[in-house]
Amino acid sequence: MNITVWNENVHERTEEHVREHYPDGIHGALAAALAGVGSVTTATQEQPSHGLPPEVLDRTDVLTWWGHAAHDEVDDAVVDRVQAAVLGGMGLVVLHSGHFAKIFKRLLGTSCTLRWRNEGERELVWTVAPSHPIAEGVPQPIVIESQEMYGEHFDIPAPDELVFVSSFAGGEVFRGGCCFRRGRGRIFYFSPGDQDYPVYHHPDIRRVIANAVRWAAPVGGRHPVPDASMSPRGWFG
Amino acid sequence: MNITVWNENVHERTEEHVREHYPDGIHGALAAALAGVGSVTTATQEQPSHGLPPEVLDRTDVLTWWGHAAHDEVDDAVVDRVQAAVLGGMGLVVLHSGHFAKIFKRLLGTSCTLRWRNEGERELVWTVAPSHPIAEGVPQPIVIESQEMYGEHFDIPAPDELVFVSSFAGGEVFRGGCCFRRGRGRIFYFSPGDQDYPVYHHPDIRRVIANAVRWAAPVGGRHPVPDASMSPRGWFG
Amino acid sequence: MNITVWNENVHERTEEHVREHYPDGIHGALAAALAGVGSVTTATQEQPSHGLPPEVLDRTDVLTWWGHAAHDEVDDAVVDRVQAAVLGGMGLVVLHSGHFAKIFKRLLGTSCTLRWRNEGERELVWTVAPSHPIAEGVPQPIVIESQEMYGEHFDIPAPDELVFVSSFAGGEVFRGGCCFRRGRGRIFYFSPGDQDYPVYHHPDIRRVIANAVRWAAPVGGRHPVPDASMSPRGWFG
Amino acid sequence: MNITVWNENVHERTEEHVREHYPDGIHGALAAALAGVGSVTTATQEQPSHGLPPEVLDRTDVLTWWGHAAHDEVDDAVVDRVQAAVLGGMGLVVLHSGHFAKIFKRLLGTSCTLRWRNEGERELVWTVAPSHPIAEGVPQPIVIESQEMYGEHFDIPAPDELVFVSSFAGGEVFRGGCCFRRGRGRIFYFSPGDQDYPVYHHPDIRRVIANAVRWAAPVGGRHPVPDASMSPRGWFG
Repeated sequence: MNITVWNENVHERTEEHVREHYPDGIHGALAAALAGVGSVTTATQEQPSHGLPPEVLDRTDVLTWWGHAAHDEVDDAVVDRVQAAVLGGMGLVVLHSGHFAKIFKRLLGTSCTLRWRNEGERELVWTVAPSHPIAEGVPQPIVIESQEMYGEHFDIPAPDELVFVSSFAGGEVFRGGCCFRRGRGRIFYFSPGDQDYPVYHHPDIRRVIANAVRWAAPVGGRHPVPDASMSPRGWFG
Repeated sequence: MNITVWNENVHERTEEHVREHYPDGIHGALAAALAGVGSVTTATQEQPSHGLPPEVLDRTDVLTWWGHAAHDEVDDAVVDRVQAAVLGGMGLVVLHSGHFAKIFKRLLGTSCTLRWRNEGERELVWTVAPSHPIAEGVPQPIVIESQEMYGEHFDIPAPDELVFVSSFAGGEVFRGGCCFRRGRGRIFYFSPGDQDYPVYHHPDIRRVIANAVRWAAPVGGRHPVPDASMSPRGWFG
Repeated sequence: MNITVWNENVHERTEEHVREHYPDGIHGALAAALAGVGSVTTATQEQPSHGLPPEVLDRTDVLTWWGHAAHDEVDDAVVDRVQAAVLGGMGLVVLHSGHFAKIFKRLLGTSCTLRWRNEGERELVWTVAPSHPIAEGVPQPIVIESQEMYGEHFDIPAPDELVFVSSFAGGEVFRGGCCFRRGRGRIFYFSPGDQDYPVYHHPDIRRVIANAVRWAAPVGGRHPVPDASMSPRGWFG
Repeated sequence: MNITVWNENVHERTEEHVREHYPDGIHGALAAALAGVGSVTTATQEQPSHGLPPEVLDRTDVLTWWGHAAHDEVDDAVVDRVQAAVLGGMGLVVLHSGHFAKIFKRLLGTSCTLRWRNEGERELVWTVAPSHPIAEGVPQPIVIESQEMYGEHFDIPAPDELVFVSSFAGGEVFRGGCCFRRGRGRIFYFSPGDQDYPVYHHPDIRRVIANAVRWAAPVGGRHPVPDASMSPRGWFG
């Protein structure tokens, strides 16, 4: 499996405390987490075509997406390409603040807004679908000592499968592990993770992301986005 | 609309502190909460046929169900009748410990187990489907100062619509407001409420239950449970 | 309820045989079908702002959409406005070839492609959710003597509720009655109807569209598209 | 993977024309179709405990179920055991007339009725979820020359995933490929197949059933049916 880990890579270059958590960038931490799952390459926003030219997307089975500070600077042509790849079967794993990424809103059609508070409070990630492959081997609950709060209402379509629901020390809840299918592609949104906390070094979080990448891999290969097809009577023989 | 409020009515008759919360029984409190919604009658387990003979079910548009201590004593013939009524269009609103009622397990097919802890802790009820009619006029979140904890994993089929998710002071979460459709009938499960706490006097909880009863009312009237139908070619004209 | 019937209005102005079916335009036929449901106004693509300036959308409870020949000429600013209105609660009923409308693809995120064949063959519309309000009073099946074929695979997200499935004389099937919820808005896609056939004069089809408009009306009023909200700990009191 | 193929085995013993289609029984044909998927054993209704004593179910990963003439003679104790196994993770593939099996109705909670007509007409099986693993490698559509008709309305809960929809020469449609999850178990219902037609020798139908068995295999192993669990505050550490 070919995995492309995409990162905006802004905070890591501009904020010392983020660099301490992620000396190799968030993309570096995620690439390490996925080393056993497939062949991993990374791409970042500052690269030409944001590191996602057609030839990269064409050979990608699953793309992970992390962005926060520079969503608006993502080129619409790249968003078009990623959307086409997903509809044709490429898996997409959107992480944390990626809920506001153009590609996520494009695929879901909603505002993807939520409540938030960055006070380093405890997050508990509860499995509500214990036999889902993305929850395999995950403790009930996952305990993250210090996290940004994301709370409802999260303005997404009802997920095709709801896998995890988080609670926070302040009392909020969040549908933080959601599966969607769009076209032939599988999409998983997973809320834990932030540039301010070492969440992507947490072994259970890494396990979930690895499971999600495996789950999101295309079934039956990649396909072009279908076009409307005039089908004469009896075309199927 | 004809509403029948069904109650096991065991705790109220045997425990003084429950009687203090519910001097007219839990059924009395619920009947008061639903007075503006339709014509309400009550039925209790100790009555002949548990108060649910065919003629009562036949004229019931929506049945609410509360039980806890005596689920096993509910007659299977009554469960059969209630199931047939639901499949034919009668609405069913199952409350709190009714998650273990025979009729609920019969309609859902799963064990309906959950975690629990009775320590009077704060429950917050979060709306995750803000435009759902059952959430109309409900604050975000509903705050219940003192409640029994119900926690995941709740072993139910994925609900057709998830309306509310609760969190508890101890950190657990629970899918406490769930819509299911079975046959022509609409089923709503709502977890807040317990004999040990005055939850059914809470105005927001009463609002939700009233909304749920309105939502669960049959569309297009009641029907017999369908039978397999031999349909000769061209039967539809 | 305020209903706005939107029509591209191209075929009616350029093709005599379409004008014979729809002397008042497809919008005229739909407005007549909805006369008993609410206060109906019509809007067409050739009008300024396509007849959908903010003040029209602001007072619209449910918008119906028919387009075919000129999807690409719909102004993106109008699509943005309609999307915002839907996310805030406005209902949207998308008809037939509207499957390729910018607003439909925007809200669903997929290609919305399908098979088609225009040979005037019999379509049967089967109800698979008989207690759904959109199916109320509808015969099983609806028989349309002469129709364009729309066939699977229809590249949409799995609908939140599937109400109708059509079959065609040539053997194809189509998920032609699909409910989606996006933000606070309800969306219904209904496939029967075409400029070449008098389908919008068929009493059962008119019944379905009237039911759909009633179903899609906003619950709890219209709201602005939500924004991310920083929520200090304890904000809910 | 351990697969147990269960068959009522009544028609094959009593009707010559069925024996011609299935000289080794329907279970024999299905066992042959699944030979490459795992280790297959068969069990039939006339055996002690219907061939499904606890030790057989305990080692079964996926059970396939075919019955028609003798549903009522299946022992409730066996149904209880199979239900417990499914809730604990065992996969279940229910075939054709198995829609009326006690175990299917038990797990779904509805009447599972449908229309039918046995006139040997053409069935077309259309894929509506082309990237679903159960549809992998399957032509669009599958053509079955001669089949019993099963038509809507099929009284089941809305499936968690709808994979196939059939049409019949007479014009009916049927949701004939449906995924359900109950407890930890995956259930697939597949309608093609009948004792009167050699459908289980059709290579595409065999492909679907093999795919379904692979899909239904337990993720994360088998578990006992959960029980309610008193969870003291802070139990998760």
